[in-house]
Order: sequence, then C-alpha cells, then structure tokens
Amino acid sequence: MPDTISFARGAPSLDIIDIEGLKAASIRAFDNDPGGTTAYGTSVGYLPLREWIAERHGVTPEHVLVTNGSMQADAFLFDHLVGQGTDVVVEKPTYDRTLLGLRQRGATIHPVSLETDGIDVAELRALIEGGVKPALAHIIPNFQNPAGYTLSAEKRAALLALAREHGFTIFEDDPYIAIRFSGESLPTMLSQDESGSVVYASSFSKTVCPGVRVGYLVGAPDLIANIAGRATNTYIAPDMVSQSIVNEFCRAGDLDRSIATVKAALKERVAILTAALSEHLPEATFQAPEGGYFMWVELPEGAQIDKIAAAATERGVAIVKGTDFLLEGGENTLRLAYSGVTADQIEEGVKRLADAVHAAA
Amino acid sequence: MPDTISFARGAPSLDIIDIEGLKAASIRAFDNDPGGTTAYGTSVGYLPLREWIAERHGVTPEHVLVTNGSMQADAFLFDHLVGQGTDVVVEKPTYDRTLLGLRQRGATIHPVSLETDGIDVAELRALIEGGVKPALAHIIPNFQNPAGYTLSAEKRAALLALAREHGFTIFEDDPYIAIRFSGESLPTMLSQDESGSVVYASSFSKTVCPGVRVGYLVGAPDLIANIAGRATNTYIAPDMVSQSIVNEFCRAGDLDRSIATVKAALKERVAILTAALSEHLPEATFQAPEGGYFMWVELPEGAQIDKIAAAATERGVAIVKGTDFLLEGGENTLRLAYSGVTADQIEEGVKRLADAVHAAA
Repeated sequence: MPDTISFARGAPSLDIIDIEGLKAASIRAFDNDPGGTTAYGTSVGYLPLREWIAERHGVTPEHVLVTNGSMQADAFLFDHLVGQGTDVVVEKPTYDRTLLGLRQRGATIHPVSLETDGIDVAELRALIEGGVKPALAHIIPNFQNPAGYTLSAEKRAALLALAREHGFTIFEDDPYIAIRFSGESLPTMLSQDESGSVVYASSFSKTVCPGVRVGYLVGAPDLIANIAGRATNTYIAPDMVSQSIVNEFCRAGDLDRSIATVKAALKERVAILTAALSEHLPEATFQAPEGGYFMWVELPEGAQIDKIAAAATERGVAIVKGTDFLLEGGENTLRLAYSGVTADQIEEGVKRLADAVHAAA
Repeated sequence: MPDTISFARGAPSLDIIDIEGLKAASIRAFDNDPGGTTAYGTSVGYLPLREWIAERHGVTPEHVLVTNGSMQADAFLFDHLVGQGTDVVVEKPTYDRTLLGLRQRGATIHPVSLETDGIDVAELRALIEGGVKPALAHIIPNFQNPAGYTLSAEKRAALLALAREHGFTIFEDDPYIAIRFSGESLPTMLSQDESGSVVYASSFSKTVCPGVRVGYLVGAPDLIANIAGRATNTYIAPDMVSQSIVNEFCRAGDLDRSIATVKAALKERVAILTAALSEHLPEATFQAPEGGYFMWVELPEGAQIDKIAAAATERGVAIVKGTDFLLEGGENTLRLAYSGVTADQIEEGVKRLADAVHAAA
C-alpha cells in the first residue's frame, strides 16, 4: 500500500507553520517577561495576551478568558450551561466533538439543517415556536466544520434577533475566522450583540500551530468570572509559557505573516482539490470554501460511506465519514480536510478516493 | 504598609528558575522536533517526554499520561474514581484544592490524622475495620502540603499492605519528591507496588517552573487508557510546545542542575525560617522539613487564626490559615511556604508574624 494521503485530520501541514518565528517568540517571552512567563499566573490566562485579545475584539479584558485550547473552553462553557435534559441547538452536520461533549452532559440535542449560507433560521424558529426552549445554540459561523459553509450577514442578524427574543445563548465557535482566502469578511455576531446573547470562542491552533494549546472565550464578565472559577479548580491556571510565546508572536506581527502564509497555501489547495474532484469524481457535489480547513462532499443518493471509507483506507487515502457529524443520515457524504495535505499530494489523493467510490458502488 | 512578604503561595521565587536553560530548551524543541512540537499530538502527551518519565519510574510508556499540570491529572483521576458518596481517605490536614475537588464530586471524605512520619495507619485500619470501604486514599508522601512531613518507610509498607488487603487505590501525589535537601530519600510506593494498588502523580512545576503546566500520572495501562480517553474528549491533547521544552530541559541535564539550585536555596531558607521562629515566636512548635515548600506551625491552644491572619495582613505578611486544610479544627495552626520568599525577607517576615500573633492574643 502506498503512503496514506490524509484528508482526515483538521491540522495544518508543517510547511505552513512559522518555526523560526516561534523560536524567536520563545526567546522574547523569557527575555521580556521571565516572571510572568514562568509563574503560575491566574486562571484567566496570561494577562498581556488577554489584553491583546480583548483589544482585537473591542472589549475590556474582563470579557476574556484564555484557556489550554478552545476545546477546553468549550468544556468549561458546557459544564456551566448544559446539564441533563438541557435543550441545545446544533448545526446539522456539526463538529463531532461538539456532539460528544453535549451528549456526555445529557443535553437534548436539536440538530437544525445547515444550508450553504449557514443554519436554517426559519427551521430553528419553527422548532422554538413548536415548544422547544433552547438554552444554547452552537454555531460555527465561518467555514464551518465539517461543511466549510459560512453564515450570511442576514442570517447572523436573524439569529441574534431570535436569541434576544427567546433568551437563548449563541455560542459563536469561530476558530477559522482568520483563514479567509476569498470573498468578504463578515462581522462577528459578538460584535453586533447588544443583548448579551453571545459567547464567543476562538483559538490560535489554526493561525500559530495546534501544538500550542491556546484558545479563548469572550463573553459577559459575570460568565467569564464563573468560568475562571471553574478553571482555577481544574488546573489553577493555564500554561503561561505557551501563552507568553503566543503573545510575543501576535504583538511582533508574526501572527499576521503566519496567517498570510496559511491563506495562500490553503487557497491553492482548494483550487487543486475542486479541480481534481471535477475531473476524477464528477458525480460529487460540493461548494468550494472561501476559507478554513474543510470541504463537505455529497455523493449521489445510495452511496454507502462505510464501504467507501474502508475502500479508501485500502487505497491509501483517509477521509472522515459524514455520518460522524450527524446524529442520523449522511450515508452519502464525507468531509475532506485540505489543511494537512500538500498541494502535490492532492490530485493523487482524489484519484484514490474516486477509485474507492467506484469500487464501493 | 510595607511591601507584603508572602509565606502564602506555594510557588518558587524567580531567582531559582533557570530562565537561560528554558530559553535554550525552547530553541532545541523547535530545532530538534519541529513537527512533534507544533502538531496536535495525542492525549497521552508528547511521546519523548512520556518515554523519559516512564524510564525514570522503571515502567513502560503505556503506564504514563502527561497532562497540563498535575491538578488536571487529579481532576481526570477523580472524575474516573470518585462519584456521589464515594468513600475517600485524606490526610488531616491536606491540600485545600484536593478537599475542594473531592467535595465537588460528592465524595464522603474521611480525614485521617497526619503524624510527623505520615498518615496514622492504625487510625486508618480502625476506620476500615469499623466498616468504611474507601475506594481511594489520597496521600502526599514527601514533604506534605501543608505539613511538610514525610511518610516513613514502615508506613509506606503498611499502607501498601492495607490497600492490597482491602482493595482500595492509593493516590500517591508526589510533586515535591525531587526537592529533598536533607535526610535520606525513600522509595515511592509505586515502585514497591505489586498488586496494582497505586496511581502516582507528579509534576515539573517545582523543578522546572510552575508556568509550564506539565504534570503526569503513572498507573496501570487500563486506567491510563481510560483517562487518555477523558483527556481526548476534554482538550484533544495537552500542550506539546511546553512538553517538548520540558523534554529538552530534562534530557540535557538542565533539570538536575535546576533541582540542585532549588534545593540549595530552600535548605538555606528553612534554616533561616526555623531560627527566626525560635527567636521571635518561641511559643510556636514545628518540625523542620527535609524538603519541599511548606512548614506547618502550631501555636498554643486558644490562638485564633482568623484574627492572627487579619493582623498579619495589616502588618504586611501573608500566611495561610491551617483551617483551610481541614474540614474542622486547626484554629491554632498555620502554613508557611518558604519557596517564594528570598532569604533576606524571611527574618523580617517572621518578626511581622510574631507581632501579629501577639497583637491577636
């Protein structure tokens, strides 16, 4: 079997990580603030990084909590807001680990259809008018995982209005926002929120590197203070060394340079991927993402993704089955991550995938 | 008010942290393993560090899980072993965050007296013979927090026998083991455990620096695999950047040099502290620790630690009340941490404390 080409993992390839920038940022972290970098610090995170994040979002620092990666932020938020039987709205499909985290806490999960311009707000409204009272709606607004779709400006406004009217929290889970390589950026719901309906999460995994587990929450100060208490009781404080390195990386402009590198590479990869699919797997339908790591692919009805995934593994190409992102259905769908493959691997990977699809038919 | 001298926080002063060694280790981490240092990695931790830890403990790597600090390891272990009504034995006094973590999970906590040579094993045996069936006994064997006492070799053997006989797990919580500055080292219970009774935790907070949140568990492979699953679901993987830096720091011999620095400084501080107490607060009783960060001080019966702590704050000296480490009692006790004060601050701090004790009498 040839070396596996992986469209499975949402992680960047090493060639688009700024190793030299990270080394230099590490040296500056220990030189510029040896005390703050090596001490326990506090559960809200390394204070200079917290301030930098707050400035970027136009809020005061008490709205911000920096965590060991944004998954940890999600876990704290779910511990706070979700218990047995809590009604939670998710996108259909959505990130598999979100489904797992909600299920583990006993949430009653209400998947609402995801369209190419984001969650179907009319379907959500009908759900609520039918009697469901969600406490939380989990939304990945930009380059959604797994679909790659982006929530339109109109739907952002409609969601905010619905949250205000019905008193639920929007969890705006936005790790990919900086990785837009075509089209126009849209304002976050957080920045348009006048009723305290939004809690926002993002991370540096996609812009610095995933090995540095630094994510964050932005929300109302009382919510952030509650979660800071949970963080203290769980781990005293998050990793100051990593947060101080990220702080130096951001403030020196390395972050913007790193983002430019990532965007250029991913834009090229999407172009190659979509061209290769059109040539080798013309029956597949998809919408080319304008950013992020992922693209959702639908095969004709009747395709059996379990068989296809097994055939793909045999042929040395890895994908994630669409069924992993859904409570039910999706047997003709799959997710392709183009973040971890280099440009020269993509066409070969798609050829293997096409071969697997045809063999499993 | 003069600048506060703090005997409160169990953290090292900046002068005993090897900043240059950490900088050099950071550069090596990115140079020697750029891929492993910047990728997500896995929930068991950065593999070369996991191997290094396993070698140190004479076990295979599947016995080891590396976490974002050992508090996070405790939290995972408690989530696994402790639920509503679980009987758990703790030392009396013990680390306040351990009590909090157990209470939050609904444990039925059984404090057993701590003597200067460790937990009172006869009292524990009587408790068990009286019908209590502990699932877990939490033991800090070396330079206990808050007391500074060390569990004797005889009691280690007796505890292991009791655990084997009655089928409970010993949680050997051992962050201070490397910081012995006088007396003879004792083998861990883990190293003498032939019945799979021991889960061991330690960390690099006291030997590298606390800002690098790297701790670990050593236990049976099935337990470690279970906790690795919890870790994946909580944060995908711990921080690889910090773990890779610690790995380089350990393997280059910086760790041993750093430990020597810390031990020399703390040995001097204990000598100054105990001399100053004998001179300025002769009514206090204590046992000089042979290692670690903390010393437990008893005042004569009738002392009111709430009043003393308030008077101390007014005079610019911080301590932690003994009552924080107990479910009840301890009004005449306090904990002094000598890790965060430099030698030249100690006598002045003790004078202020003595003044506070006398003012509150």
